[in-house]
Amino acid sequence: MADGELIVVALGGNAITDPDSEGNVDDQFANSRAAAKPLADLVERGCRLVVTHGNGPQIGNFLVRNDAAATAVYPLPMEVASAHVQGGMGFMIAQTLANELSDRGHKNVVVNTIITTVLVDHDDPSFDEPTKPIGRFMSDEEAEELRRDGRWTIKEIQPGKFRRVVPSPHPRRVMEIELIKRSVRAGDLLVACGGGGIPVVRDSQGRTNGVCAVIDKDLASALLARELGADTMMILTNVDRICLNFGKPDEKALDRLSVNEAQKWLDSGQFGAGSMGPKVAGALQFLRGSDRADARVIIGSLDQAAQAIVGQAGTVITAQ
Amino acid sequence: MADGELIVVALGGNAITDPDSEGNVDDQFANSRAAAKPLADLVERGCRLVVTHGNGPQIGNFLVRNDAAATAVYPLPMEVASAHVQGGMGFMIAQTLANELSDRGHKNVVVNTIITTVLVDHDDPSFDEPTKPIGRFMSDEEAEELRRDGRWTIKEIQPGKFRRVVPSPHPRRVMEIELIKRSVRAGDLLVACGGGGIPVVRDSQGRTNGVCAVIDKDLASALLARELGADTMMILTNVDRICLNFGKPDEKALDRLSVNEAQKWLDSGQFGAGSMGPKVAGALQFLRGSDRADARVIIGSLDQAAQAIVGQAGTVITAQ
Repeated sequence: MADGELIVVALGGNAITDPDSEGNVDDQFANSRAAAKPLADLVERGCRLVVTHGNGPQIGNFLVRNDAAATAVYPLPMEVASAHVQGGMGFMIAQTLANELSDRGHKNVVVNTIITTVLVDHDDPSFDEPTKPIGRFMSDEEAEELRRDGRWTIKEIQPGKFRRVVPSPHPRRVMEIELIKRSVRAGDLLVACGGGGIPVVRDSQGRTNGVCAVIDKDLASALLARELGADTMMILTNVDRICLNFGKPDEKALDRLSVNEAQKWLDSGQFGAGSMGPKVAGALQFLRGSDRADARVIIGSLDQAAQAIVGQAGTVITAQ
Repeated sequence: MADGELIVVALGGNAITDPDSEGNVDDQFANSRAAAKPLADLVERGCRLVVTHGNGPQIGNFLVRNDAAATAVYPLPMEVASAHVQGGMGFMIAQTLANELSDRGHKNVVVNTIITTVLVDHDDPSFDEPTKPIGRFMSDEEAEELRRDGRWTIKEIQPGKFRRVVPSPHPRRVMEIELIKRSVRAGDLLVACGGGGIPVVRDSQGRTNGVCAVIDKDLASALLARELGADTMMILTNVDRICLNFGKPDEKALDRLSVNEAQKWLDSGQFGAGSMGPKVAGALQFLRGSDRADARVIIGSLDQAAQAIVGQAGTVITAQ
């Protein structure tokens, strides 16, 4: 591992909010402090980090607040909500990482948060077919009422359970990339691209405007890693390794994979659409787009990030 | 005016939300687009800008959402709310300024938003005596109930009208200053220090943590301007000039003032506590702290920013 290895670390939304519990701000700060420990391990190994993160549970709660106050105060549209949550979560993650480093004797380290917008194509096919569920589950009756209202697309996610879905367009460019590059070069620790970035489209006059959509955070992180020329992209989640036949008697954890092998297993449906699939897809995007032959992706558990970076945990995916 | 003059521009909260109307997000974007025009004028004159902004109305509405959903989802504490609103307003202001520049032929300019935290003293006297009103007005009954609850300090702002008040500590250090400096040096346009910055205190172990308070945005902007070594601080509001005997028959608008004159009029109570007073206090902080003899502060109306920078509008305050 080269000294100063540049790593884009993508934290799953469930690293901050346990999907099985409602959680509150104290819980989120506690989880964020726990997540800061393996991140600080990486910093102490000499790695340079750009931390990205999911925002699913937080956006969901934000929208609940929006709805609850809808008669009293104007609602915020999705892209503006996303900008808010980037600020709030970035503040929390940056602060807990700086404090963990301070506890370890690295005083006065500042972790910076950059509000990040990501360009998507205005004619991305996902705008015609929204798929990304956001917000809370709804009953059949609620769903029907909102369908009649016509502003939202509502989908039956599980039998009898409905959610709002929004487009999930492919990320094309990290708009703030020059600032992020300079900041990384100067040795800053950064939080960026939270929640996959705020999606923006460019109109024919050259203006960019936020759009109601959610970019997959692993794909956005892959784009960021590629544009930064990162050595490594780490996708940290709650499983130790990528598995074949996940959850079955013949489950097999994988130590390493080539791009071609990963593509083969992805195509054959080995990886869940809402779980490992997007992570592997993000990994492939980064590795294929990178102009570095030695670029690698590590997918593993947050707890074991420091072991994974030296090949003692996680699954590593490489070009060959 | 030197080419490349570095200006910290403080936008009043009412530049984005008309205090006399509720406003919604479309209104805020429209106001933000209007505010972008004079800012773009400054950019076209060759000025380098760091834009700061108030957040009073937005924080108020954010807290309404928080309260309305309190039985359904955890509330966000003040400092986390402030981080959210920094993200949301920064996104809006940055986007509208970039688009105004694009409309004028400056294509592909990116305006960056940096989440900014500001260190305050843990023993700042304001923590014992909160004065800054936030959130909505309340009736006597509501105020009494919240007083009994004990978590908030409630104050009678006008006869029979009550509001929550929070401490307003003095800003000591902009934590992200190195990133902001580098970014300014590289020629970036920036939005920073929104809402006066997120107040943080440092504990005896060296950890920094957000704290429930609101830093005056003009004082925070003055600190930022001083730390950046800015040439000029502009405080843009809805009045054309600083006035003596404001609103009286013998009202007199001032073109220029020295620090000593400004201090004299401030001490004599010429400037309103919730309006021009903090702006003049911010101006004095910047000018006294600056190590540049030619530093200046311009206080004037947003519309006339471009005229003010060449001495054709506004009030200029200088060291001598």
